[in-house]
Amino acid sequence: MSRRPIRMGMVGGGRDAFIGAVHRMAATLDGSMELVAGALSSTPEKSVESALDLGLSKDRAYPDWESMLEAEAARPEDERIEAVVIVTPNHVHYPVAKAAMEAGFHVVCDKPLVLDEAQAKDLVLTRTRTGRVFAVTYNYTGYPMVKEARHLVQSGAIGDVRKVIVEYNQGWLATPLETTGQKQAGWRTDPSMAGAGGAMGDIGSHAENLVSYVTGLGVTEFASDVTTHVQGRNIDDDTSVLLRFDNGARGILTASQVCPGCLNDLRLRVWGTTGGLSWQQEEPNTLKQTSLEGPDQIHHRADASLCEAASATNRLPGGHPEAFIEAFANIYRSASSAIHAGRDDGSAFDYPTVEDGARGVKFIGAVIAGGGQGWKSFQE
Amino acid sequence: MSRRPIRMGMVGGGRDAFIGAVHRMAATLDGSMELVAGALSSTPEKSVESALDLGLSKDRAYPDWESMLEAEAARPEDERIEAVVIVTPNHVHYPVAKAAMEAGFHVVCDKPLVLDEAQAKDLVLTRTRTGRVFAVTYNYTGYPMVKEARHLVQSGAIGDVRKVIVEYNQGWLATPLETTGQKQAGWRTDPSMAGAGGAMGDIGSHAENLVSYVTGLGVTEFASDVTTHVQGRNIDDDTSVLLRFDNGARGILTASQVCPGCLNDLRLRVWGTTGGLSWQQEEPNTLKQTSLEGPDQIHHRADASLCEAASATNRLPGGHPEAFIEAFANIYRSASSAIHAGRDDGSAFDYPTVEDGARGVKFIGAVIAGGGQGWKSFQE
Amino acid sequence: MSRRPIRMGMVGGGRDAFIGAVHRMAATLDGSMELVAGALSSTPEKSVESALDLGLSKDRAYPDWESMLEAEAARPEDERIEAVVIVTPNHVHYPVAKAAMEAGFHVVCDKPLVLDEAQAKDLVLTRTRTGRVFAVTYNYTGYPMVKEARHLVQSGAIGDVRKVIVEYNQGWLATPLETTGQKQAGWRTDPSMAGAGGAMGDIGSHAENLVSYVTGLGVTEFASDVTTHVQGRNIDDDTSVLLRFDNGARGILTASQVCPGCLNDLRLRVWGTTGGLSWQQEEPNTLKQTSLEGPDQIHHRADASLCEAASATNRLPGGHPEAFIEAFANIYRSASSAIHAGRDDGSAFDYPTVEDGARGVKFIGAVIAGGGQGWKSFQE
Amino acid sequence: MSRRPIRMGMVGGGRDAFIGAVHRMAATLDGSMELVAGALSSTPEKSVESALDLGLSKDRAYPDWESMLEAEAARPEDERIEAVVIVTPNHVHYPVAKAAMEAGFHVVCDKPLVLDEAQAKDLVLTRTRTGRVFAVTYNYTGYPMVKEARHLVQSGAIGDVRKVIVEYNQGWLATPLETTGQKQAGWRTDPSMAGAGGAMGDIGSHAENLVSYVTGLGVTEFASDVTTHVQGRNIDDDTSVLLRFDNGARGILTASQVCPGCLNDLRLRVWGTTGGLSWQQEEPNTLKQTSLEGPDQIHHRADASLCEAASATNRLPGGHPEAFIEAFANIYRSASSAIHAGRDDGSAFDYPTVEDGARGVKFIGAVIAGGGQGWKSFQE
Repeated sequence: MSRRPIRMGMVGGGRDAFIGAVHRMAATLDGSMELVAGALSSTPEKSVESALDLGLSKDRAYPDWESMLEAEAARPEDERIEAVVIVTPNHVHYPVAKAAMEAGFHVVCDKPLVLDEAQAKDLVLTRTRTGRVFAVTYNYTGYPMVKEARHLVQSGAIGDVRKVIVEYNQGWLATPLETTGQKQAGWRTDPSMAGAGGAMGDIGSHAENLVSYVTGLGVTEFASDVTTHVQGRNIDDDTSVLLRFDNGARGILTASQVCPGCLNDLRLRVWGTTGGLSWQQEEPNTLKQTSLEGPDQIHHRADASLCEAASATNRLPGGHPEAFIEAFANIYRSASSAIHAGRDDGSAFDYPTVEDGARGVKFIGAVIAGGGQGWKSFQE
Repeated sequence: MSRRPIRMGMVGGGRDAFIGAVHRMAATLDGSMELVAGALSSTPEKSVESALDLGLSKDRAYPDWESMLEAEAARPEDERIEAVVIVTPNHVHYPVAKAAMEAGFHVVCDKPLVLDEAQAKDLVLTRTRTGRVFAVTYNYTGYPMVKEARHLVQSGAIGDVRKVIVEYNQGWLATPLETTGQKQAGWRTDPSMAGAGGAMGDIGSHAENLVSYVTGLGVTEFASDVTTHVQGRNIDDDTSVLLRFDNGARGILTASQVCPGCLNDLRLRVWGTTGGLSWQQEEPNTLKQTSLEGPDQIHHRADASLCEAASATNRLPGGHPEAFIEAFANIYRSASSAIHAGRDDGSAFDYPTVEDGARGVKFIGAVIAGGGQGWKSFQE
Repeated sequence: MSRRPIRMGMVGGGRDAFIGAVHRMAATLDGSMELVAGALSSTPEKSVESALDLGLSKDRAYPDWESMLEAEAARPEDERIEAVVIVTPNHVHYPVAKAAMEAGFHVVCDKPLVLDEAQAKDLVLTRTRTGRVFAVTYNYTGYPMVKEARHLVQSGAIGDVRKVIVEYNQGWLATPLETTGQKQAGWRTDPSMAGAGGAMGDIGSHAENLVSYVTGLGVTEFASDVTTHVQGRNIDDDTSVLLRFDNGARGILTASQVCPGCLNDLRLRVWGTTGGLSWQQEEPNTLKQTSLEGPDQIHHRADASLCEAASATNRLPGGHPEAFIEAFANIYRSASSAIHAGRDDGSAFDYPTVEDGARGVKFIGAVIAGGGQGWKSFQE
Repeated sequence: MSRRPIRMGMVGGGRDAFIGAVHRMAATLDGSMELVAGALSSTPEKSVESALDLGLSKDRAYPDWESMLEAEAARPEDERIEAVVIVTPNHVHYPVAKAAMEAGFHVVCDKPLVLDEAQAKDLVLTRTRTGRVFAVTYNYTGYPMVKEARHLVQSGAIGDVRKVIVEYNQGWLATPLETTGQKQAGWRTDPSMAGAGGAMGDIGSHAENLVSYVTGLGVTEFASDVTTHVQGRNIDDDTSVLLRFDNGARGILTASQVCPGCLNDLRLRVWGTTGGLSWQQEEPNTLKQTSLEGPDQIHHRADASLCEAASATNRLPGGHPEAFIEAFANIYRSASSAIHAGRDDGSAFDYPTVEDGARGVKFIGAVIAGGGQGWKSFQE
């Protein structure tokens, strides 16, 4: 792949951040993007220092995102950043993404997209108006075996989907960690920064997107239970949802942050009329396929039989496991391809779009608002 | 154990039946009971032939259960059956169980107990009135690691329970098997024989009981989705339920018979404030315990650290796996102990009681009736 | 199965014994045999008491095996025992088995068959001379998935076998348990009672037999390392062997009792020119089959595709796990069939024969004698 | 980590190569090194084209390694490469590594180090003489859980080591792939390019190094069986070794490339007097620790309890799996630290040294030479 890397400017991801470093590794692993500018923190000083830490040149170590957008836009075309990568807490996504597009930059934005449906709608419109490429890092769809699962569903390998169980359980918020000064816990449990959803927003949104990506089905009705187990917390830390899909399939989605011993336990099971699929994020290199009569089949990440989308996102031979960073890098590779092509086409380039992100925000809002209220209809 | 076996008379379980043979192996594995009489089929001829197949003497190979009860009651006390074991389709449980108790016999009855709440209530009253021992074969509570899980919850090893996920998925009814003459599929999908619940009744009832046994919690509210995926079927084959418990814990219960590749996939996960537990019926010899900080612990069926209830139901050293029949036999061993003691005390002897069975029937009925209707309250 | 149970007299297996109870459960689970007489201990008093514990009649609760053989032989033919089941420490196997056959009884004998090759040869000759049925309880070959593995090898599903790894690791003798009075540890580490092999004899013999059963290959050369890790012990507790087979395949056999955390960890892997098989005793209900290209296949104990030998030894539907006792019972079922037929044919009835047992004894002796001495040839 | 990347020049790893790309990703993932020059192929033209593919400047896209060393040495000190990374087939390692050190460059070299013991000794001497940093990419020691295993052994968590089983099985050479023109199969089965060992050299060397790294034990005696199963092949494709260690421990090492279904199945189990450890490369984020009494413990890659060496090589929170590339990158990070410090100290910086590589070459040679000849002594 001799393609040159896309020049990126990052917003957020400075010292003490978690996900920023992941984005940088993912963006550069295959040479998809290179970091040339940054406004890496909400504090001007820390922002600049973080950028220098990372070896950025002084004149591109910006104190805030506004100045980055302005200064970069003023640079020569073959030098200025092409994409703005947004890895801040959720409440900053909207203004940065909107301004970035309006300043002519493509956008890669972490999930959930924004705080509410109104912001989401506006970003969708802005993207259409500006024609920029916009990718949302629902990174779990970057795993090759998730792509294979999608392929198997689409190709009819399990028949018509009847039942879906998606789970995303963690345990790190089983105690009031946010009261200890832990930064990640702080903003993720603060509705003004995280949005309406806690567990539902932070990880439930991944679960929703994974189901949508793999099954292609839309949710039409749901019943949710939205719970805060840890006293003093102002946001859900455990949400369960019954789902009905547009083809008549039924589903269960659960997202919890109070399950001690669960680290990042995202699992998807899908059953159709003639077979089933099972995948677990913590052992991402295999995919189980079942059938009416047995035996089960275990597909591996580099089996000759895999679909093109799965094969294309493999770097290593079978048995040389790939994992989180590599899957994340696949999203960057796809987004970079779209930017090179100048075409915001998530289907063609296989990345999550602003529309996917907007649907997720709408879903989070609906699930939280409908908590404990019985069945609600949902229209994507 | 030099205790003599309890003399049992079996109703149902003749040729072509599935669960009858399991009951016989379970009853005799440890010498808990011995089969001395039977009315093994709904057809008089087949009933007698089935009994002779099993080596019963001609005069105790009865054409129907009514004649068995009458004839056995007329035998000398030290010869006549002491317990009636009911392994028929569900709709036969009630009349046999009631008549058996009234004729002075103890009862071991398969689950779900009966067809509806009225029958259940009557059996509870009848049992109190007659003072007989009554055990319901919720056999999965017979597994030592389930007993260990219960012990760990009770002893506070995982703190206060916050979240429960119980799943019981099978795939054998993913096609309209009942239209092919398959006997098991036939009655289990016929509401007149099975009761209100299909998947919910046949396997969801095990799931309900497992949660109750392990956590000790009671359900106070639920929201259910009750679905029939296979066209032409008159009963649910896929039911999902959101649960709220009396201590504020939340739960998910799912029972499905249309998940191809799932054989008898009963799984229980329970998380509390400080830890979690995970157990799977298909690999019953281990129990995973998690904590806030890690590492996970894997308990084995014969570890020195196990509680008394788990140790007492072990037959073999660690690594010599025990499984379905042995767990089932533990229920018989407990019931037999109660009968020897002449005391219907499920807590003391560790077996599921008629009250447990009645609660299950009520729960099945409520879940089915409330399908798609939002949150319902439930009182045990 | 209306066949009447074979009447058995047991030698060994009284109070404090471990394996005797397993034999009794296995023999009776399917009604293959029934216990009618016993000489259950080496002490006359304990022998009788143990028999009464088990509900045997006083006149068949024998003080020693000699009197059992004599008295039973004197009973009417339709009443006397038909088979002698030997579950004593190894050094008692030979005299009892020989006398039993000469007294006209069939024999079921635990493994390893006897103490040395001379005894083994004599039993083989005695069996031929007397025409009795003789089964050795290499119980692990009773597992349905082991039978399926054998079938897959025989039917060419993995091509010509090239490599075999068989492991049998335990940890219970990692400390000098025999110095604490623990009875099992006592005789199993005493060469006068156990024979030449400790780990190699007690569990390595199972490993050897499993390989032979599944692959049908014979060992032609080996190099072994025979080690005693626990100070003061007079027998190997850890033996490793390189194997060469008569078709050119290579193998590794390891048997250790000093691997803390290993409970009864018997595993077999076999690879041929086009595929491989993997089975683990502690999760006996599945068998993994691999191929040159993937995906892997996981066979389950009751899959429709299983061979006849595997299907015939199934009792329960898939997902209702069967385990150690059930596999053991399959050996009894086969032996019982042979006795009913009056024909000592291990191939036809699928049980381990005295010749299998003799080969095992020879192999144990050779491996122990050749420890640390480089390559040795072996002729079965 | 604001440390600047080390400038590297790569030899080998051009078009069609496999491991070169892995080295580049590993070197750059954390910014440990940056690629500034290359002689990437044995053909001058392809060498230059491959370099341009990767975005190297024309004047540093060298036709061969000799010219790279010469030209780079002539550049200003703050511009020229600092390290030569050797990712060619094995037979090229020696001349390049020697010349590189003599030209003043540090070396990162793939394994096995060289073709024979004489070359190995010379590289060790050359390294001492030149004082350069020399790292061998035994990449599996880069996994955090391998470091934790080493720590647990060193800290006495399992007592004194008694038994080791290390396996490295693959299936990709089960057919004569080298006759199809497949490049990787070609040189790896050609002794003039690969050295004396096929399976033993390519993967057995990793197994040897893993045991050495984790246990710290040295091999004193061994007995090996060296086999070529695929007709026409001139090198072993299946080697098994019995091991004796300097503390009296016993071991088994097996390396096979003819096990269909095995992808890259490196596994290590170590048992000591009081516990055991088990790790598998294909599921590298967990480590099982066992004890005399149970329960087992499952450690996860980011557990708070991990040792410093394991924690320091973590990038992501628990449950966000890291895998092959990340482990490989840890070797680069260590080597880069040593280069920055100007000190070739594998213990301090935690990377495999030229002495580790030399021991591996000696071991490969001894195992192959001793194949089928019984016990041989070995001195490191």
